Amino acid sequence: MMKTDTRKINFGAGPAMLPPEVLLQASQAVLDYNQSGMSILEIPHRGQLCRDMIDECTALVKELCGIGDDFHVIWQQGGGRQQFCMIPLNFLRPDATAGFLISGHWSKEAMEYAHFYGNVNEVASSEPMKFNCLPAIPVDFSQELAYLHYTTNNTIFGTQWHDIPQSGAVPLIADMSSDILSSERDYSRFSLFYAVAQKNLGAAGNCLVAIRKDFLDRQVSAKLPPSFDFKAQVAERSVLNTANAFAIYVTLLMLKWIKAKGISSINADNKLKSSILYRSIDDSPSFVPYVANKAHRSNMNVCFFPVNPDVEARFNILCKQNNITGIAGHRSAGGYRVSLYNAISIQNVQLLSEIIASI
Amino acid sequence: MMKTDTRKINFGAGPAMLPPEVLLQASQAVLDYNQSGMSILEIPHRGQLCRDMIDECTALVKELCGIGDDFHVIWQQGGGRQQFCMIPLNFLRPDATAGFLISGHWSKEAMEYAHFYGNVNEVASSEPMKFNCLPAIPVDFSQELAYLHYTTNNTIFGTQWHDIPQSGAVPLIADMSSDILSSERDYSRFSLFYAVAQKNLGAAGNCLVAIRKDFLDRQVSAKLPPSFDFKAQVAERSVLNTANAFAIYVTLLMLKWIKAKGISSINADNKLKSSILYRSIDDSPSFVPYVANKAHRSNMNVCFFPVNPDVEARFNILCKQNNITGIAGHRSAGGYRVSLYNAISIQNVQLLSEIIASI
Repeated sequence: MMKTDTRKINFGAGPAMLPPEVLLQASQAVLDYNQSGMSILEIPHRGQLCRDMIDECTALVKELCGIGDDFHVIWQQGGGRQQFCMIPLNFLRPDATAGFLISGHWSKEAMEYAHFYGNVNEVASSEPMKFNCLPAIPVDFSQELAYLHYTTNNTIFGTQWHDIPQSGAVPLIADMSSDILSSERDYSRFSLFYAVAQKNLGAAGNCLVAIRKDFLDRQVSAKLPPSFDFKAQVAERSVLNTANAFAIYVTLLMLKWIKAKGISSINADNKLKSSILYRSIDDSPSFVPYVANKAHRSNMNVCFFPVNPDVEARFNILCKQNNITGIAGHRSAGGYRVSLYNAISIQNVQLLSEIIASI
Repeated sequence: MMKTDTRKINFGAGPAMLPPEVLLQASQAVLDYNQSGMSILEIPHRGQLCRDMIDECTALVKELCGIGDDFHVIWQQGGGRQQFCMIPLNFLRPDATAGFLISGHWSKEAMEYAHFYGNVNEVASSEPMKFNCLPAIPVDFSQELAYLHYTTNNTIFGTQWHDIPQSGAVPLIADMSSDILSSERDYSRFSLFYAVAQKNLGAAGNCLVAIRKDFLDRQVSAKLPPSFDFKAQVAERSVLNTANAFAIYVTLLMLKWIKAKGISSINADNKLKSSILYRSIDDSPSFVPYVANKAHRSNMNVCFFPVNPDVEARFNILCKQNNITGIAGHRSAGGYRVSLYNAISIQNVQLLSEIIASI
């Protein structure tokens, strides 16, 4: 049904390309989920089939992240922005202050959302440098913050925190939407981390939220309707409302795919993919990388600009001829952005870098 | 791939059974969406493919509901409970009062959620009758209410408002999650109506929200983060955050299926299905219907109880032998509940009623 020669090479920033074997299994489950006689779209969300599936997904993500029973894991709808609201609703009193490391559009938006609920403190920002690097964290930032939030990978401008920032006694919260399980990382250092699925973990409509149990105990006491109350969501084990079983299942398939490859192998591949691409851009007279500081470059999103409109026109034609799509920069940034999430093959990156080298 | 002889007859209250042709098309789109060379899980949410798909879905639901440009239609994640929050957040000042017709679990829960944001007034309730009928609306209820909210169909106890309540000058809001597009209805009488997709309109993870434009102008002025702000959601045309394109596509397929049958034909079939089933229960010495008042009975969910454990045991065995599933009553109600949403065939209802008659 899927002709590989017509399948697009999609370097989009998310929704991202998924492995063909994941798509095949997901497609089959829409017809019949695990020989249950029901589609994955039809299984009851409180029934054993769905419970087992969600439990398996939760256990697997804990195993791959190396976190244990000191964390709750739940699966939510509403994208990253829902969490931009949920986190301050649950952890920021109106008179308290949350800190933010501003390394790009999404971290800034997370701060703006939090400001509806409490005070915010821009601990560090690379906005003056137009987000072409990571901000330097002051050593003496306030330890009175309710939490410190940052975005591990900046999809729009192509920077990535390869090391976990030191937050001292302040609980650390991370939006890992665009680089979760793409490299080895000490997930136990976070009080809360979250990631939408449509980049490295599956399809839109599902968001992983992992909350350290002792952090959840510090939930602010404001009365929240259950939908917005992490304690209620945790107690209902992701089925407070009808779970998006299909999207959770696609995440389960992606987690199995990641486990089969192994995180260290995925990490190595991601480093290789980005190094191939950065090298071709750095060596090219026709393109300039957006992020000059190599230590701050993202392995997930590589952003670059053509030196002139002629280069741009020739590059666009070659990409189209080679069935490549999804490389336009974010509407707020322009230029090109190539996303190299887990499911992007080395071979596809090589093809793109050859095109870049040819111009 | 899908053997029809092993396919369950699923009378679940939602997620509900979908037509085989809808499942086939949805399954195919997971592999390749409309010969785009991309899975429906991979298409960019702000790209033309996704925009066109959402626009088509919106146009079709407007056509089928008979509403025009005086309504905004958006597609949201987070289930009905997200709307239980969104509606008071947008339309209920803390010092104002919203009215509720309490006809079952869901209408009561909608009221409880609204109470986090403002005052609530239980205009009428059938809770003293354990929800086995609809409540009578007092003729003199306050016209100062911010809105009057009701649930058109009570899934758990099996009652349904076949006529639209008179709300006078008070804006009328309805949760139509379990009976939207199941019958002919004057949708233009509502200021806002919403419906999760997993019963009559597709799969979990998608919720239709239709808002009359002049009602949206009456949004309360409290500052809301964009995720919770209907005006922001409307302005972003359902892609404020990454849309659940797959679930919206399944809804589009269901809407096309509904249009092909025609609402009046669907209405006739739903009446026929429920009358077949109610008759078999009314005529049976072994079962009693939960809702005695025939004018209040739901055509969507038929609730009944066995007269003794022996009947229950025999019924359960026969259902299992006939591959029937999803008939257990809600955990809060007990007994049996048979859901007869749009995609349930007359033939399957006849089989069930024959089993009931045989006991």
